[in-house]
Amino acid sequence: MSMPINDHVHVRIISPIVTKGFRKLADLKALEHPGLLVSHAEIATGPGSIESEFEAAVSVPGTLAQVLRAKREGVQAVVIDCMGDPGLRPAREITDMLVMGPGQTGMHMAAMLGHKFSVITVMRRLIPAFENTAALCGLSSKLASVRSVDIPVLALEEDLAATTARLVEEGRRAVLDNGAEALLFGCTGLMGCADALRQGLLAEGIDVPVVDPIPTAIHIAAGLVRAGLTQSKTTFPAPPQKELIGYDVLRPALSVAAE
Amino acid sequence: MSMPINDHVHVRIISPIVTKGFRKLADLKALEHPGLLVSHAEIATGPGSIESEFEAAVSVPGTLAQVLRAKREGVQAVVIDCMGDPGLRPAREITDMLVMGPGQTGMHMAAMLGHKFSVITVMRRLIPAFENTAALCGLSSKLASVRSVDIPVLALEEDLAATTARLVEEGRRAVLDNGAEALLFGCTGLMGCADALRQGLLAEGIDVPVVDPIPTAIHIAAGLVRAGLTQSKTTFPAPPQKELIGYDVLRPALSVAAE
Amino acid sequence: MSMPINDHVHVRIISPIVTKGFRKLADLKALEHPGLLVSHAEIATGPGSIESEFEAAVSVPGTLAQVLRAKREGVQAVVIDCMGDPGLRPAREITDMLVMGPGQTGMHMAAMLGHKFSVITVMRRLIPAFENTAALCGLSSKLASVRSVDIPVLALEEDLAATTARLVEEGRRAVLDNGAEALLFGCTGLMGCADALRQGLLAEGIDVPVVDPIPTAIHIAAGLVRAGLTQSKTTFPAPPQKELIGYDVLRPALSVAAE
Amino acid sequence: MSMPINDHVHVRIISPIVTKGFRKLADLKALEHPGLLVSHAEIATGPGSIESEFEAAVSVPGTLAQVLRAKREGVQAVVIDCMGDPGLRPAREITDMLVMGPGQTGMHMAAMLGHKFSVITVMRRLIPAFENTAALCGLSSKLASVRSVDIPVLALEEDLAATTARLVEEGRRAVLDNGAEALLFGCTGLMGCADALRQGLLAEGIDVPVVDPIPTAIHIAAGLVRAGLTQSKTTFPAPPQKELIGYDVLRPALSVAAE
Amino acid sequence: MSMPINDHVHVRIISPIVTKGFRKLADLKALEHPGLLVSHAEIATGPGSIESEFEAAVSVPGTLAQVLRAKREGVQAVVIDCMGDPGLRPAREITDMLVMGPGQTGMHMAAMLGHKFSVITVMRRLIPAFENTAALCGLSSKLASVRSVDIPVLALEEDLAATTARLVEEGRRAVLDNGAEALLFGCTGLMGCADALRQGLLAEGIDVPVVDPIPTAIHIAAGLVRAGLTQSKTTFPAPPQKELIGYDVLRPALSVAAE
Amino acid sequence: MSMPINDHVHVRIISPIVTKGFRKLADLKALEHPGLLVSHAEIATGPGSIESEFEAAVSVPGTLAQVLRAKREGVQAVVIDCMGDPGLRPAREITDMLVMGPGQTGMHMAAMLGHKFSVITVMRRLIPAFENTAALCGLSSKLASVRSVDIPVLALEEDLAATTARLVEEGRRAVLDNGAEALLFGCTGLMGCADALRQGLLAEGIDVPVVDPIPTAIHIAAGLVRAGLTQSKTTFPAPPQKELIGYDVLRPALSVAAE
Repeated sequence: MSMPINDHVHVRIISPIVTKGFRKLADLKALEHPGLLVSHAEIATGPGSIESEFEAAVSVPGTLAQVLRAKREGVQAVVIDCMGDPGLRPAREITDMLVMGPGQTGMHMAAMLGHKFSVITVMRRLIPAFENTAALCGLSSKLASVRSVDIPVLALEEDLAATTARLVEEGRRAVLDNGAEALLFGCTGLMGCADALRQGLLAEGIDVPVVDPIPTAIHIAAGLVRAGLTQSKTTFPAPPQKELIGYDVLRPALSVAAE
Repeated sequence: MSMPINDHVHVRIISPIVTKGFRKLADLKALEHPGLLVSHAEIATGPGSIESEFEAAVSVPGTLAQVLRAKREGVQAVVIDCMGDPGLRPAREITDMLVMGPGQTGMHMAAMLGHKFSVITVMRRLIPAFENTAALCGLSSKLASVRSVDIPVLALEEDLAATTARLVEEGRRAVLDNGAEALLFGCTGLMGCADALRQGLLAEGIDVPVVDPIPTAIHIAAGLVRAGLTQSKTTFPAPPQKELIGYDVLRPALSVAAE
Repeated sequence: MSMPINDHVHVRIISPIVTKGFRKLADLKALEHPGLLVSHAEIATGPGSIESEFEAAVSVPGTLAQVLRAKREGVQAVVIDCMGDPGLRPAREITDMLVMGPGQTGMHMAAMLGHKFSVITVMRRLIPAFENTAALCGLSSKLASVRSVDIPVLALEEDLAATTARLVEEGRRAVLDNGAEALLFGCTGLMGCADALRQGLLAEGIDVPVVDPIPTAIHIAAGLVRAGLTQSKTTFPAPPQKELIGYDVLRPALSVAAE
Repeated sequence: MSMPINDHVHVRIISPIVTKGFRKLADLKALEHPGLLVSHAEIATGPGSIESEFEAAVSVPGTLAQVLRAKREGVQAVVIDCMGDPGLRPAREITDMLVMGPGQTGMHMAAMLGHKFSVITVMRRLIPAFENTAALCGLSSKLASVRSVDIPVLALEEDLAATTARLVEEGRRAVLDNGAEALLFGCTGLMGCADALRQGLLAEGIDVPVVDPIPTAIHIAAGLVRAGLTQSKTTFPAPPQKELIGYDVLRPALSVAAE
Repeated sequence: MSMPINDHVHVRIISPIVTKGFRKLADLKALEHPGLLVSHAEIATGPGSIESEFEAAVSVPGTLAQVLRAKREGVQAVVIDCMGDPGLRPAREITDMLVMGPGQTGMHMAAMLGHKFSVITVMRRLIPAFENTAALCGLSSKLASVRSVDIPVLALEEDLAATTARLVEEGRRAVLDNGAEALLFGCTGLMGCADALRQGLLAEGIDVPVVDPIPTAIHIAAGLVRAGLTQSKTTFPAPPQKELIGYDVLRPALSVAAE
Repeated sequence: MSMPINDHVHVRIISPIVTKGFRKLADLKALEHPGLLVSHAEIATGPGSIESEFEAAVSVPGTLAQVLRAKREGVQAVVIDCMGDPGLRPAREITDMLVMGPGQTGMHMAAMLGHKFSVITVMRRLIPAFENTAALCGLSSKLASVRSVDIPVLALEEDLAATTARLVEEGRRAVLDNGAEALLFGCTGLMGCADALRQGLLAEGIDVPVVDPIPTAIHIAAGLVRAGLTQSKTTFPAPPQKELIGYDVLRPALSVAAE
């Protein structure tokens, strides 16, 4: 509550994938303002992108290693760059630095801005994961639907006009068929497309906010740091000191946790 | 999504009561930073404080008048200074400027930081109102309990040590008896007491975040403005132009809405 | 539990709008029987009709003034003549006379008669309000859908055949598409149309009860008076005596509350 | 919707037990008024009282026989005299006469009058049944608790002072420990005790409504008849004509259903 | 927990109808394996089949008689052969032998295997009953939909190809339109059709498990017996000894219960 | 539905920890019967025990490797030996062999046997995880409470009498204070203690089933195999073929998935 804050808050985005160049630093730098600094990291081991529970699982050790590094470097808040929030809960245990997931954050923001919201994601197979996230956030009653454009993460930018057209189509159906009154991207790979989706819907007379999860999570994380808040250490206490075979990169994390 | 943002975001706190000096401007100014400007207003007609549904109801026209004024003055976000969020929904209809309530915002933030949260409010009679807010936010499953210190709003500062002692006692019971893992003040009159409550609980070995709703709502509102977001105009469309007897001060508001 | 009851119970309908002639006294008088007397009042300040949260908010002070008058005149129960139940909660605080809302009452009755019910209202923009009422009543799981005929309140009687046709169409879709097994009008301006809707649906082989909210709320309010019941004073305690600027017409109400 | 109503509505109470004198006709007659006639019947085969799912099950055929008789005799509404509402659903299938259960009705009324309610029943073993009724009514979120006085149904009147003392004790704990703001008797054998419980609680400064389920269900049933309403025939269609071995007394009921 | 188990567990299927030959013993015998014995019984009084709450109610006494007999014969678990689980709760009271319903069991199994499930039943009128079962199981959030083929129970086998075609059609719509990821038959008369439905859906590229409730309930009941488990005697205590008029066949059951 | 079953079903228990001897093979062999074979494996890399989200996360890759091995060896069902079900969802993706978690399975079984259940676990910090599991299973309304004995997993057997005494104490409070009617161990390290807990409670007059999760999950998994069922491939489709850095041991798993 009394942690000293510099003129700016420093938020680190950790992309839990090994694909270089997926997240352009310039896009993140564009979010900075006099009170905010944004930096970025990728993981060293793990999947090329995350579209399954398997890929989410094997991304977590690499993400935890980057969380430890961010803490060492004096970062004040970390945002995990995947709407599945992989590793959010263990990451919150191994540090007292604020760790946020764009899935959880985006759902809470969308729920505050409109009566109900829909998630527009990439693949149909991700629907259960988003419904589970909503259940864990306590927000099932605010989730109008989860819809997919059926384009894989790494193909979203191949034909941006086609991607936008599909977003507008699913967004329209979310509003008209499912009663959504706000929209949330269900993949952080869609960062930067919110304006195009919103304009496309406005052109059809549909006026709903479109939550772009990474920019939103960055600004909300910075706001929570300003408010002197971090995750509850009753919900996320440090893991007990104990035998660990493998995962040497995470061993220092345990001693950090034991501080 | 493309509204121009100055170097700073301007957030206005509207206290929906007629009591002068309830909210000290210096406390608000202390929240400013290079990217944030905070200002304040009270209402001209309405109650001395809000501890009932009746008082909440008669505060709303005055609040709506101040929301219109804030919009005219170029403010970018308004926070209503009462945990009951009185007038939040009609205020969101009469403007496209972001309007936030600290009740709704505080609950969503507390739910993001810990597994479950409790509200510590002033009077027992307010318990149904907070349970209703949680239900409307979709957050009933995250609300561990609502507890009260049984001190009226305007008496909170009379004996600050006694107030703090009661906060610690109810906070402890919320954590140990009700399973709370984060705490939220249920009265904006408690602004500034979060640190004392948190230290008091830490002294007893209880480590949970304490959400001070007005500072938190200010920083979250600023974050949403930075993210280019405002309330859904599908949930909160402008009211239709129609006969209105009385409430002359709100008539300009209708023409604003009709723009 | 032992309040003396005359041969008849006296129920007052308060229309929370300033439009004269919206509610015809003869329609209310037709509901009387040897044990029931029905009377009517409108408000002096407020909106011409209620189709927004803004209009609901500015109707409340006028409604509260009429509630106080009804109490002075020995009325035994008041029903607020709007499906949004505007002012229901503050009205229940300022008197121990039973105050009922047709929204809340109609939903509970529909839920008792069929497995799930749908609300057929006037404008699409009212859907969130009805879903919120259901949530506050604890009845979200019984609400099959909210559908709208897209005709403004004050235009419902302009072409009664067209209104009925739209009611039948939306009623059919509520039953066949949404699984409704009972229907509830979502606007008290539709009073008297229940028979036409029910006959229209029967002609298509659909046999569901249609709850006309004002007649239903009147008879249920009378039944609760007969059963010696009124709202809980633990949920709705009298507001505390306190400074109030403006709203002089409500000042006597405070002294009534303090009795 | 257009069923002709005499000067009075006729409601029949069916006690689903074989114990004579359990329900005193004078107590029912005291509820009559110029618009209401109340009559009574017991069942011919079944249990002495109902405190288990087994007894509830073997009460149903006898109740259904009495429902058929009530319909033949021109009764306009039936109330089943047990808080478990045994036979309510099949009874609603075999007639278009309104059939109500005091469990369902009492819960909806209690939920309308206060923020949350508790049920005070006779035996601990009935708690799951009341929680199940609340779930089926969609009212789980309004049920603060179910508490028991631990006195069997047929022993309630043996020491009325002891019964009242236990009611007051459990009522107090429901309000103070569980947050109840209204109370509902969980046994129709407690009819007539509401006033004593309410006065006992008022003497301790607790002001909550106490719903006496049989008088309440009678007046609400009469109100629904006045409003032209009966159970949904989409939820409760007549049973199909089919082979039935045994239960000769119910065979005419099938032909009634097939009318 | 320490009940001796023979080499095999003996599970008895009780068909709660009087129609001979509805359940073929050979179909049940095909489920046996070295650790499992399966037997069968019908009831002596009751309906020809169960498609209404009325028929369910009049099946219960006959079922309870067969439960008592199964206990006398040393059976270790009983499964009631109807998806409405008629008599499940009273049957669990009158014995400490495990009693299972295929409705409850099938829903829990379907919920464990896929994210959400749909029930495919025979008649539209059964939809409320399945939604009620889900609510009582706590599984409403896992139930994607209930759909019907609109073929009466006793006609299912008249044209098996037509039945299968309807199953595939409704199964496809459950998956594609309602988001089901597992399917459950909503009638035990469909036993043996799971393979045909699953193959039909696979041919359309839809790969979801199809729970055939009677085989599943038999194997799960046997598993629970192996795990030393039976229903809770706190939830299902023996009924109290008390007057009972009629139902002589159930009188011994009371003395068994009193052991 | 038509997978060939040998005389016995083969179930493999995978302990997701590196501690040798935690699970005694003899205890598992005691569960075998003529139709069931049980085998065991531990993981090669990961934590010594699991009492945090961090330890759960780093157990998953090792568990997935063992799941692949089990499939290669012809096992028919796998049970993950931890009540947190770590790795359940990714494991279900990478194979069509049935994979079950004792947390999910135990909760569904407890919910079927009693009205509500409580989980008795080892450490207070695990409470959120069990409440989250219940939410994802859709069983929140059946979970009476989660209570802890406050003894670490690896210390449970140090003083078995003390462990049993704590189990009985928390079990009693779960039943008497929280309304539990069945109990479930919240740690698979308690395997074998169910009888002692049940006898301890019976000695105090409390008769509730105690679900020992590993034996129960084994028998239920075997039952599902007998019923021809496995997890839904719509909920758990194989992960897409894609770049993966590290986790070489899991690479064959991807090609298995792609079969």
